[in-house]
Amino acid sequence: MKDVLTRRDWLRRSGMLLGGATLIGASTITAATPSQRRSRSPIRMMFNENPYGPSRTARMTMTKAFEESSLYNHFGASVELKEMLAKKEGVKPEQIVIGSGSREILNVTALHYLGDGGDIVANYPGYETLNMYAENLGAKVNRVQVKDDMSPDFPALEKAVNKNTKMINICNPNNPTGVAIGADKLEPFCRKIESKCLVFVDEAYNEYVMDKGYRSMVNLVKEGLNVMVTRTFSKIYALAGIRVGYGVAKPEIISKIEPLITGTVNILGLRAAMASLQDEAFQEMSRSKNLEAKEMVYEVLEQTRKEYAVSEGNFIFFRTGIPITDFQAKMEKKGILVGRPFPPFDKWCRLSMAKPNEMKKFASRFKEVMA
Amino acid sequence: MKDVLTRRDWLRRSGMLLGGATLIGASTITAATPSQRRSRSPIRMMFNENPYGPSRTARMTMTKAFEESSLYNHFGASVELKEMLAKKEGVKPEQIVIGSGSREILNVTALHYLGDGGDIVANYPGYETLNMYAENLGAKVNRVQVKDDMSPDFPALEKAVNKNTKMINICNPNNPTGVAIGADKLEPFCRKIESKCLVFVDEAYNEYVMDKGYRSMVNLVKEGLNVMVTRTFSKIYALAGIRVGYGVAKPEIISKIEPLITGTVNILGLRAAMASLQDEAFQEMSRSKNLEAKEMVYEVLEQTRKEYAVSEGNFIFFRTGIPITDFQAKMEKKGILVGRPFPPFDKWCRLSMAKPNEMKKFASRFKEVMA
Repeated sequence: MKDVLTRRDWLRRSGMLLGGATLIGASTITAATPSQRRSRSPIRMMFNENPYGPSRTARMTMTKAFEESSLYNHFGASVELKEMLAKKEGVKPEQIVIGSGSREILNVTALHYLGDGGDIVANYPGYETLNMYAENLGAKVNRVQVKDDMSPDFPALEKAVNKNTKMINICNPNNPTGVAIGADKLEPFCRKIESKCLVFVDEAYNEYVMDKGYRSMVNLVKEGLNVMVTRTFSKIYALAGIRVGYGVAKPEIISKIEPLITGTVNILGLRAAMASLQDEAFQEMSRSKNLEAKEMVYEVLEQTRKEYAVSEGNFIFFRTGIPITDFQAKMEKKGILVGRPFPPFDKWCRLSMAKPNEMKKFASRFKEVMA
Repeated sequence: MKDVLTRRDWLRRSGMLLGGATLIGASTITAATPSQRRSRSPIRMMFNENPYGPSRTARMTMTKAFEESSLYNHFGASVELKEMLAKKEGVKPEQIVIGSGSREILNVTALHYLGDGGDIVANYPGYETLNMYAENLGAKVNRVQVKDDMSPDFPALEKAVNKNTKMINICNPNNPTGVAIGADKLEPFCRKIESKCLVFVDEAYNEYVMDKGYRSMVNLVKEGLNVMVTRTFSKIYALAGIRVGYGVAKPEIISKIEPLITGTVNILGLRAAMASLQDEAFQEMSRSKNLEAKEMVYEVLEQTRKEYAVSEGNFIFFRTGIPITDFQAKMEKKGILVGRPFPPFDKWCRLSMAKPNEMKKFASRFKEVMA
């Protein structure tokens, strides 16, 4: 009998408990030597990075933009990118806010809504950046555990909203699980809750999604609802280190959060983002290579009888069956870096997709570790 | 009789009044076409940019860093840059905070000290970014006008500090005036005030200063005083569009403001900053070309009998004698962009230094306009 995840009971089986979110930082693992950085050795399967970029178009554009890198042209370029994004999303430029990665938009939204107190309801596990910034400000984060099938527990989320709640934080597709919520479930929930508090939907992995039931919540923003959506150039566009992301919401929301942004996006990032948006061939290549890599991992996981969650992102969350810290160490010895612990998922691993030859090495080394 | 500025009475002569700081934004003037951006036509003498960069070293380093631009290596690179800066400044890495331009450090300091109320005392005219972010948060900015010789009115600044004051904001050398405060005056003031509130000193133009009486206030940070200093890679290092700056203060201050930063600095900026720090030849070239250009402007101003302030920055503040908006328009018609209005200095212009051939064009066209 194969032991592949049946979504209904995987959480129960893995004996998960909602504990404190003691998340391990990324700084030590990134302290690679210059040659390690360039050779991708060890193999990087830990940060949900796109291994194929930046695209050639982005590189060429950035090289041209060196000419304006000593200038304050980023103010104007920011306006240009906003106009481009507004057109793409079918909204007005005043409904777009650009940040140094979508992380900046998450943080500044927390700052606006929770800087003066209040609490936040978050789908858990999820992407914790916004929650952590909010906690830093002294806000209370009310984490509501997903159901056994890993989908949000909408009734419990709704119940957790009280008069102090300023926003609900949902990531879709979710990180670290990779699970996408269908529009048939998320839309009605957003419509029900938006009168009570902001519904924040982080769609960082939006462009990787293949599931026909998924839809971006930007449609609800267009209807004028109290919903905010974020996107990033870090994933399918492969510009993680260049730091560009954006948020889409009603002008009334954007005009309040934008002035709170502390930094300014760099000109190379802005130009690279504009070029990358138009480079559909690169996006398509990234998407199809990612699918190939995921198929390879699913196969290996089925061969080794591991449970996993079907992923709509560029990573797969699966049950190692051994403590994640042990698994991490064993894989690192074999030259492969895998995702950090996501407590309380102590026997689960988030594995990011890599290049084909790296994926092959992963497959054989994983089998050795699991033998 | 030459009409060159005698510092004692220039303010009186120009009939300055301290009015509301209605500052005109930069976004319209930066909306240049791609060919204008590359050709530097019209000539840019409006934003205190370094016309010589980024340096060749910085460009080469950024090109190499394309390889890691799809990765989250900026966390590690940020640690590397901090260590380098700590060594340079003679402090510990935990005394350094890095931001997307020093602007981010200014904003986040305002956020920490004034997010929960309180007021700020500012030397005026000065660099208004921090003040404006603070006002956005609802804080009160108490602007204290400089003395007739354009140096800070220290007794008035001291008097303006009350129990609600969280910080004093000083820019040295000052922008838009270019005037540097000697250490013999600034140090005793800092020592006197730091027990009452944070003394914030923005030293963006530090590396251009030739005046022997000037000293960085980092020395006071090293002594453990309640003083914070900011620096930028936008000026002598010519990386304005790449967005890298830093702050130096006690670890207790850094640990409070750093978590409030909303964004993250990009990998190309971090690598370019590290390379630029070591490229002393480029810094020296920028410094000496800047001096040459300033000498040329002083000469033209003396020939046309205009008052000016002796500048330690990469720009010169001088009295046009005609409304600045008229002067701007006339110069723009001749293909030269000069600084925006700095109310209430309605007949003064901040002129940034440009390349030698551009400086020659400025000299002849300025004389035509003033004829």
